[in-house]
Amino acid sequence: MTTGTWYPGRLHELSPEECWELLAAHSVGRVAFVGPDGPEVLPLNYAVARGAVLLRTSPSSALGRKLRHDVAAFQVDEIDEFTESGWSVLLRGLVEAIDVADLSPDDERPEPWAAGDRTLHLRLTPRTVTGRRLVPT
Amino acid sequence: MTTGTWYPGRLHELSPEECWELLAAHSVGRVAFVGPDGPEVLPLNYAVARGAVLLRTSPSSALGRKLRHDVAAFQVDEIDEFTESGWSVLLRGLVEAIDVADLSPDDERPEPWAAGDRTLHLRLTPRTVTGRRLVPT
Repeated sequence: MTTGTWYPGRLHELSPEECWELLAAHSVGRVAFVGPDGPEVLPLNYAVARGAVLLRTSPSSALGRKLRHDVAAFQVDEIDEFTESGWSVLLRGLVEAIDVADLSPDDERPEPWAAGDRTLHLRLTPRTVTGRRLVPT
Repeated sequence: MTTGTWYPGRLHELSPEECWELLAAHSVGRVAFVGPDGPEVLPLNYAVARGAVLLRTSPSSALGRKLRHDVAAFQVDEIDEFTESGWSVLLRGLVEAIDVADLSPDDERPEPWAAGDRTLHLRLTPRTVTGRRLVPT
């Protein structure tokens, strides 16, 4: 495999189906929201369930206070610094607090890696699902 | 090394010095900004220069149109799905378009991996530099 070091790579748009496949195969992404001082980005575990992304956080966190009903973005990517290639998927839509009892028993649950009282479940239902792949030429 | 699979990890705050060390050792991050429909997140190559982060984009991109003078966040992380650990650094502040002629000859330049007319140079001067490391317990 040749690396892209000398030859800039080409960006290709991903289809929504490809985006969901990539999302389903990973477990950590980044939620972006608008805090009191502008945009914020935090990495978070997630699970994919029926066309949405489920997150868990602490009710007292910045995220938990802000995202019970607000627009946000959720981003997942994989980047290879050696081949200078990668892909990125972006979901944009409304985040709402949900009652975990409303989840189907079949729904995958997000499993936070970080310890703590992460009892608030959030669901991001995307209005747009877009993605790009950077392929070395 | 034991994995964190069964035991949730602990989050530790990083000092600004640790954050800059991690930033200097990497070359791809994610810029978050507020577009017309809410937050957006895009991966981008960057370079660190004198307490700021330099980015390059196309003048006609969403980023190039929006970020000539606006608040934004820039996030870099490294996540290990096997050990369920990682770190994340977040810069928040003002992004401004700069004239590349104003850069010092010693300043490292961002080298975009993607082909295209990425002639617009942007500088994010952080007002806050924060970071966290998730260590398996």
